[in-house]
Amino acid sequence: MGHLREWALPAIVGAAIGAIGLVVVHGQQRNASGTLTSMDYIEIQQLVSRYPYALDTGAEGGYTYADLFTPDGVFIRASGARVEGREALARLVRLNPQAPRRSAPGPSFDPGRRGPMYTSHFITNHVIEPAPGGAVGKEYLVILDLGDPGQTSVVQQGGHYEDVYVKTARGWRFKSRQMIQSRAGT
Amino acid sequence: MGHLREWALPAIVGAAIGAIGLVVVHGQQRNASGTLTSMDYIEIQQLVSRYPYALDTGAEGGYTYADLFTPDGVFIRASGARVEGREALARLVRLNPQAPRRSAPGPSFDPGRRGPMYTSHFITNHVIEPAPGGAVGKEYLVILDLGDPGQTSVVQQGGHYEDVYVKTARGWRFKSRQMIQSRAGT
Amino acid sequence: MGHLREWALPAIVGAAIGAIGLVVVHGQQRNASGTLTSMDYIEIQQLVSRYPYALDTGAEGGYTYADLFTPDGVFIRASGARVEGREALARLVRLNPQAPRRSAPGPSFDPGRRGPMYTSHFITNHVIEPAPGGAVGKEYLVILDLGDPGQTSVVQQGGHYEDVYVKTARGWRFKSRQMIQSRAGT
Repeated sequence: MGHLREWALPAIVGAAIGAIGLVVVHGQQRNASGTLTSMDYIEIQQLVSRYPYALDTGAEGGYTYADLFTPDGVFIRASGARVEGREALARLVRLNPQAPRRSAPGPSFDPGRRGPMYTSHFITNHVIEPAPGGAVGKEYLVILDLGDPGQTSVVQQGGHYEDVYVKTARGWRFKSRQMIQSRAGT
Repeated sequence: MGHLREWALPAIVGAAIGAIGLVVVHGQQRNASGTLTSMDYIEIQQLVSRYPYALDTGAEGGYTYADLFTPDGVFIRASGARVEGREALARLVRLNPQAPRRSAPGPSFDPGRRGPMYTSHFITNHVIEPAPGGAVGKEYLVILDLGDPGQTSVVQQGGHYEDVYVKTARGWRFKSRQMIQSRAGT
Repeated sequence: MGHLREWALPAIVGAAIGAIGLVVVHGQQRNASGTLTSMDYIEIQQLVSRYPYALDTGAEGGYTYADLFTPDGVFIRASGARVEGREALARLVRLNPQAPRRSAPGPSFDPGRRGPMYTSHFITNHVIEPAPGGAVGKEYLVILDLGDPGQTSVVQQGGHYEDVYVKTARGWRFKSRQMIQSRAGT
């Protein structure tokens, strides 16, 4: 016991100094970028990267899409309309085989073109910033209507997203995502 | 010697506690995303980012492209045809100055347009997941045929890639990449 | 004092061993990718992601754009013309409400279309490499002229950027960025 105590303090001090060193190293990373770790940035990038697959395929009755959001999450359309909560979000992207479908790509949105091999939402220029309660971000979006083999492809429209992210027990999720269509001029 | 021993144990214990702290910090990052570190994600992103340059320029007789794959790596074309092994992969993208070349961008692929300043394969929405033996990933791809100065530009086609990555002594490499062309509907 | 000294050495040795372990762990990350940490890659990605917003919006009289560069930074246009230093860089992208503006998207650049909701520069395929004094990088760029609601959208042109980055007291900045327009063939 006496012997234990004799080295216990030095050991704890050594560990403490080591821990301070660790905090300093990680703290510098944090200072440079707020309060997000490298892995937070990567997980938020991954969340945003999974979004287009969930949206364009309408997988799992739309729940793959809905579950990228928090249970009270909201998607705000370019029109300003709010789609809020898991059921409404899933319904938004759910496949409807009865939907009328254009035979070729066109300049406006057609829900009948969604499906397991359809790719339409191309997202890039992802900016992430720490924010109270989590993080915020924004990205450029271009919606392409890519042709089936042999068909031509067109640029439908585009703009940018503004996002709020929160870290849940299941990982980073969208608390909100707003689509803002591109507009020229001041 | 006796003095050395006296502080050696505390020092080791101190270091050990510090080391445990380090493992815990890094372990949390791993738990959150399977078995890939931040640097694994970044290196796999970099591998995928280098792919279009190697493909569109046909650099080094196609070997820059081939060497992004493992020696037994395979590229599976949209048609389902398999291009397997270093020589076949290099041949796939090798420049052929004798290839007939369109004077302007067009809606279908033209190998004569490849070259050191040509940019055509735009990749985004990169999802990475740990997998037994390494990692798997997928991305959206749009093939643009960008005009030379003064010419118009067109969207050729697009779809998505499905990848298998392995970490080799030379870094992360493609074990396989499959191109799946976009198709509308269920 | 005598007691302090008695555990001070073990504590320091413990901390030192812990610190060596820390350096080894981080050193392995460095060895795998040159001399950049995970956070360096992420901060350089973030710098590149912020660029299109600053350029397409012309925010803050163009200084948001200019301040992505070092004070002596340079942007080299596709023509080869050099735009050098903070004032010249800000002037390059500053909004001019008097600029004539096309009523619809077109195949060539129109400064009158810039504004707070305009999205035009889509950047992807970001390769980052350590280099003496910092890092270098390259990306693919496509300039889309996206229509306002109801208008069609077109691909204007594209190519790639070649960048030099340096780490300043305010974070990673462009020392230089050169735009190289896509050209077909050898």
